[in-house]
Amino acid sequence: MSRFLRVLTLEQAKTKLGENWRPRPHAVTLSLDDVLDRVLAGDVVSKIDVPPFDRAAYDGYAVRASDTFGAGEGAPVELTLVGHLRAGTWPKKRLRKGECIEISTGAPTPKGSDAVAMSEHAVAEGKKVGVYRAVAPSENVAERGSDIRKGQRVAQAGELLTHVRLGVLAAVGAERVRVFPRPKVAVISSGAELVRSGGRLNPGKIYDVDGPALSGAVSSCGAEPVYLGIAPDRASEIRRFVRKGLRECDVVLISGGSSAGAGDIIPQVVDGMGKPGVIVHGLALKPGKPTFIAVLDGKPVFGLPGYPVSALMVFDQLVADYLRDISGAPKPHASTVRARLTARVLSARGRRELVPVRLVDKAGRWLAEPILKGSGAVTSLSTAEGYVEVPLEYELVDEGEMVEVKLFGGGRHG
Amino acid sequence: MSRFLRVLTLEQAKTKLGENWRPRPHAVTLSLDDVLDRVLAGDVVSKIDVPPFDRAAYDGYAVRASDTFGAGEGAPVELTLVGHLRAGTWPKKRLRKGECIEISTGAPTPKGSDAVAMSEHAVAEGKKVGVYRAVAPSENVAERGSDIRKGQRVAQAGELLTHVRLGVLAAVGAERVRVFPRPKVAVISSGAELVRSGGRLNPGKIYDVDGPALSGAVSSCGAEPVYLGIAPDRASEIRRFVRKGLRECDVVLISGGSSAGAGDIIPQVVDGMGKPGVIVHGLALKPGKPTFIAVLDGKPVFGLPGYPVSALMVFDQLVADYLRDISGAPKPHASTVRARLTARVLSARGRRELVPVRLVDKAGRWLAEPILKGSGAVTSLSTAEGYVEVPLEYELVDEGEMVEVKLFGGGRHG
Repeated sequence: MSRFLRVLTLEQAKTKLGENWRPRPHAVTLSLDDVLDRVLAGDVVSKIDVPPFDRAAYDGYAVRASDTFGAGEGAPVELTLVGHLRAGTWPKKRLRKGECIEISTGAPTPKGSDAVAMSEHAVAEGKKVGVYRAVAPSENVAERGSDIRKGQRVAQAGELLTHVRLGVLAAVGAERVRVFPRPKVAVISSGAELVRSGGRLNPGKIYDVDGPALSGAVSSCGAEPVYLGIAPDRASEIRRFVRKGLRECDVVLISGGSSAGAGDIIPQVVDGMGKPGVIVHGLALKPGKPTFIAVLDGKPVFGLPGYPVSALMVFDQLVADYLRDISGAPKPHASTVRARLTARVLSARGRRELVPVRLVDKAGRWLAEPILKGSGAVTSLSTAEGYVEVPLEYELVDEGEMVEVKLFGGGRHG
Repeated sequence: MSRFLRVLTLEQAKTKLGENWRPRPHAVTLSLDDVLDRVLAGDVVSKIDVPPFDRAAYDGYAVRASDTFGAGEGAPVELTLVGHLRAGTWPKKRLRKGECIEISTGAPTPKGSDAVAMSEHAVAEGKKVGVYRAVAPSENVAERGSDIRKGQRVAQAGELLTHVRLGVLAAVGAERVRVFPRPKVAVISSGAELVRSGGRLNPGKIYDVDGPALSGAVSSCGAEPVYLGIAPDRASEIRRFVRKGLRECDVVLISGGSSAGAGDIIPQVVDGMGKPGVIVHGLALKPGKPTFIAVLDGKPVFGLPGYPVSALMVFDQLVADYLRDISGAPKPHASTVRARLTARVLSARGRRELVPVRLVDKAGRWLAEPILKGSGAVTSLSTAEGYVEVPLEYELVDEGEMVEVKLFGGGRHG
């Protein structure tokens, strides 16, 4: 295998991946308690009428509307009180002419009645109730099926289950629904210099940043990160980590060790693990050149750069949309901000360059300050809110030009 | 107790609650794995330099810069290769004049060296390395502490922990951090007519909508819902549910049974459970008049209307901001949309009216269609993306006027 396969543009790489892997969410059936923010995999059709019976929309008296005709402020109609109906009970008595039954909001209206006189417009005295306003048939009654008819579609495949939609599903008694589950994504860090955050930092070692940062990025796409830890720098160990990732997860991310340096054996090792193996190695993207993509056992393995800022930007450009696709998560809204660039940015023609920027609010307008500390610097992370793309065919974007800033997401502008 | 205490405006009610309860988040220490999207309770100061040692920024050869002076495309400087340094190891050898050591990105630079010649600009042949471009002192070396200095503040109290910030915390080895935990909110539904979704629907019964919908709404505010179920219509049972909520949670929500109807005993029961008891009963808000607020054991109990649409709108107006405050969650961005009203909306002066609306995209402009099915209809939920407020002092908002639509959150415009 050559040091790099042919360097591809991002679009070519995605096409190549598309030829070898089809991101397909598989639906599962879950309880309503567990589906907030998941995406519905199938339409939901109501099996019941809602409400399932004619019921009082307000507290008052169930009446025959015709009995109240002619009632007015100064001329009440007098009816005989023959009972009380609470919500949750079922009426046994049939209402006859000249009668009324006290009724609570939500209680089924009794047979023989066809309207409810609101308690505001009635005065009870013992067994006599004076009704001071006439009601029309059906007035103040929520009729069976008036809200949702049996057989009506109440939610549609592809919809995001917000808490509001959960309420609708609850109303029709859809206790279990088919949704797309959160896909599992293995996150593997590699590099002999890495120590898990909080561990002992021996000479020559640094803390692993990509593990936690990529895990968080995976969560932000609606997927579930499974951080497998730091793979030691040996072929057998790398194989073991990747195999574990393929067994337990739908997608594998491995950061570091994918450039053409002496210690960078990962693409070679992964390539040997199955067919078709490594299908892309090298992107016309800066940072991101050493990125590789493999497909093994029908699952994709993304090899990301080791520098945290590079890893996150390549994740954003290459991986994020696939995870949203297979989690069924909607594309994020308002994930870009237009801003004025505060310094000239240079690039090489024929490669897309990503420049992390800090956003500064100047009198209500956004300025984008390029962060030139380099993608090896972790502080680029803490100050960068997003990045600017310099397209393939550009050599520079000048100071003062308006640019689209792609936000890292979840930030203070997200 | 009168049927309603004095009806208050929303602002008066919040002032009254503020006099009796101070929402105060209490911080806890959690592992980095568990703090995504939580809010930092204290500054984080780095205990280490990052990087902790001078290290190679690229693959190449550690050199003395002065040895390379005069090197050029056609005139390489020849150095003697005396070793190899991989990332994660610690150099023992000291570099002398005329020597170089092959070095991987991230490896500590050896004593005696002060720069790295990139492998792109060098050719090795056996023990001889030709360097084709001069490097300045420090070139291609990430110096100790150049990224983050020991003692530097890397994150600030009040910041939302995005995946990007998690990366920074990981870099300084901050494995455990102080954050504001998700507050727990008890969700209780009440009403003798209610059956838990999916259960058997006997005559006179309907499915509980508020439980799942309010639980989801609580989650959306960064808090953790604890759905306690449906409280039977008896004082002893209501007391038992509320007591359980107060014991296990920071805030209690109870929906239904708070109006002035015959079966609506909840405010009375809650008022008797402690001091100061019910402090607000009745809001100048439609829907929402029967809302009550109690404070018991220093914790707030919110009594919300039983109709789902009403419950969600009152939650949004009255409860949501408190939950965000005690969870430390940031106020949501872009939670309103400006739209043109498609039909006149009437209101009563002296009360704030909330009208659920559906948003329609017409040639890139939003139209807000009032949903007039009433707050008892669950379908109002499935079609409503948010609501319009008619302020206290207005009697109508006319067709064609521009209005702010408050989004229910998590919806397709959120």
